[in-house]
Amino acid sequence: MDFFQCIPLQSAKEVITQNLTGAVVPPETVFLLDALGRVAAEDIVAQENLPPFSRSTVDGFALRSADTFGSSESAPSLFSIVGEVSMGEPATIELLPGQAVAIPTGGMLPAGSDAVIMLEQTIQPDAQTLLAVKMVAPGENVVSAGEDVRSGAVLLKEGQRIAPQHIGVLAACGFARVPVRKRVKVSVISTGDELVDIQDIPMAGQIRDVNSYALAAMLTEFGCDVTPMGIVKDSYEQFFTALGQAVATSQLVIISGGSSVGARDYTVKAIDALGAPGVLFHGISIKPGKPTIFGMIGQVPVFGLPGHPVAAMTVCEQLVKLALGNLFGQREASGTVRLTAQLTRNVASAPGRDDFINVRLRRQQGTYKAIPILGKSGLIHLLAQSDGIMHVPADKSGLYDGDPVEVLLIKDTE
Amino acid sequence: MDFFQCIPLQSAKEVITQNLTGAVVPPETVFLLDALGRVAAEDIVAQENLPPFSRSTVDGFALRSADTFGSSESAPSLFSIVGEVSMGEPATIELLPGQAVAIPTGGMLPAGSDAVIMLEQTIQPDAQTLLAVKMVAPGENVVSAGEDVRSGAVLLKEGQRIAPQHIGVLAACGFARVPVRKRVKVSVISTGDELVDIQDIPMAGQIRDVNSYALAAMLTEFGCDVTPMGIVKDSYEQFFTALGQAVATSQLVIISGGSSVGARDYTVKAIDALGAPGVLFHGISIKPGKPTIFGMIGQVPVFGLPGHPVAAMTVCEQLVKLALGNLFGQREASGTVRLTAQLTRNVASAPGRDDFINVRLRRQQGTYKAIPILGKSGLIHLLAQSDGIMHVPADKSGLYDGDPVEVLLIKDTE
Repeated sequence: MDFFQCIPLQSAKEVITQNLTGAVVPPETVFLLDALGRVAAEDIVAQENLPPFSRSTVDGFALRSADTFGSSESAPSLFSIVGEVSMGEPATIELLPGQAVAIPTGGMLPAGSDAVIMLEQTIQPDAQTLLAVKMVAPGENVVSAGEDVRSGAVLLKEGQRIAPQHIGVLAACGFARVPVRKRVKVSVISTGDELVDIQDIPMAGQIRDVNSYALAAMLTEFGCDVTPMGIVKDSYEQFFTALGQAVATSQLVIISGGSSVGARDYTVKAIDALGAPGVLFHGISIKPGKPTIFGMIGQVPVFGLPGHPVAAMTVCEQLVKLALGNLFGQREASGTVRLTAQLTRNVASAPGRDDFINVRLRRQQGTYKAIPILGKSGLIHLLAQSDGIMHVPADKSGLYDGDPVEVLLIKDTE
Repeated sequence: MDFFQCIPLQSAKEVITQNLTGAVVPPETVFLLDALGRVAAEDIVAQENLPPFSRSTVDGFALRSADTFGSSESAPSLFSIVGEVSMGEPATIELLPGQAVAIPTGGMLPAGSDAVIMLEQTIQPDAQTLLAVKMVAPGENVVSAGEDVRSGAVLLKEGQRIAPQHIGVLAACGFARVPVRKRVKVSVISTGDELVDIQDIPMAGQIRDVNSYALAAMLTEFGCDVTPMGIVKDSYEQFFTALGQAVATSQLVIISGGSSVGARDYTVKAIDALGAPGVLFHGISIKPGKPTIFGMIGQVPVFGLPGHPVAAMTVCEQLVKLALGNLFGQREASGTVRLTAQLTRNVASAPGRDDFINVRLRRQQGTYKAIPILGKSGLIHLLAQSDGIMHVPADKSGLYDGDPVEVLLIKDTE
């Protein structure tokens, strides 16, 4: 049996980051709505002021604020109404002292005016006359030209994931097309003589290939372009050929399975044979996920993930997404949400090992309770019941009922 | 000016829920990987046991646990090795007392065995002889047939959003195709004489149509099939025609804009004219988002959202997604993440009104700080800077520095 040398999780992360720093996939330009969830490939800089002109934020009358000085219910100030601004039209009138112009919410302020008085704060004895019963300050009820976004302001930083509200900001500033990082091409190879595709009926001794699908779903959600390469039987030649193909056509390769010692051995052998530097670590002090392999074949990172679905998904979340974050040039470490919850029972853990435990989350009076889902390692149904993954750091030998714990969300929660 | 009657946010939610209870869109069957992010249309029930056979979780020897009784380093028990199990093959041997069979991780347990002893706990003096130096319990290092999932177990409940880990569970149980709710068809109509498409250059007095894009992005992310109907100018006839078309082809309609009084008036008029029950509320005690309109034209819910992008997105998050949750038959109220953070400054709010304030989140020692982003209502750049939206409930007249607040995440955060 191969007693590989385990390295700490933190060291594994450092190896990955060191080998992928600066290894960013090329950009492409996409239509604004297609940029949702993608990573900005450059700083996106406003080319103009927003709003482009000073706008009213209320329905009322544009005027000179100085002319309202001292106005009150008992001593209103008098204006002559000299016209009105229409929505979507330039304001062509130029106001003189003592003049006012009717303006709708969103209307363009006419030259000479510096504020808007709300309709409710005025009286109109006739169509040409306005009484202001309140004082307005300069700029009141107005968004000035450039007050929202100044030309030259950075709207989105290189490396940011584009969320719906960014789409709004980009639309406002006229970016119909956006430079984003291309989707990282990921190939997933499943290995194992016991595996059959989910479309097939397993015979005695066989099980379905879970990881091709679970990993493809995770990585598609993360913005990758995933190619499942199917199942490769436990044969070094077949495996070597499949891995060579995957490396030639992908920017990151995942080998899943190979729970057997033999499979692990030829995974290592094939990575080393296909190109330098080859295998960089083999075995991490985490649970689940200990027999993880990582290497680089030339510029292409290759992960060998454990066959157990729970372990494979844990390592994918912890390490594969870290590698992908580098390839996408992401500013934040990952696109995932962590929250702090209160543990509901004692949990034991080996010191020196990072443990990841599936938990259910329950919300009580604004705080979350994390209920560990315990069971034999690798049971798949635990996945379906869990809302997140709790982390017991390597420097703890366990956690106690009531302790705060960090939970990585693996599904939307309320 | 139309001083509409404002109703509390809670009442608005009740009106929406009452009018949409049971109004679920039809199901469709999709390929497993395409089910990601969709809503399960029925309970998905395991049709078989998982694993289908008892499997070893280690590399070792299958044997009868009773035969190891009393085994220790100093008094090992003796077994004859009568064969080996191959990965992916049925275990054809039937074990007799005192016999052992070599088995790999994931291998099928042969009849007659009830446990596996790890390789490290054995000695093999020769190819036919095994010494067990430890006792094993019945079931040790074995996942029994059906221990993970029993035939008949509910894998996924009707109304659940399908996350990557569910894809794993469904793959394991052989669901290559999954019944999900169809994507809800949403039409978005933008109104306002001042609007131009983002592809166009705004003239003086004009601004770009932000909401068509921002709302489309939000609702696409939520699993809808969004049709932007473009910009309808402020003309009742054009608007009536566009709304009629939208209602005929969609399951939910959003009208965005109409910040002007006139636009609000004809939105109400057109909803009432196109079918009963028509407008159900007009005006909510929230900030931003007060001038929101909701009605039903026959079976189709119609929202009139404010023109300010920040207000439109707030109401979309609070109310449109609630309506969509009903149409999708979702079990959870929404697919969003809320967390509790600590406020970093005092925030004033009018009692009786629900306030939603954009915040930046900063993580410090495992807890989040919520930093309110203050500025004139409706400034779009606030959106780009914010990580989430903080809620000041209607029963509070403000919140203090250090108070815990609920934050709805609007982008992924670390």
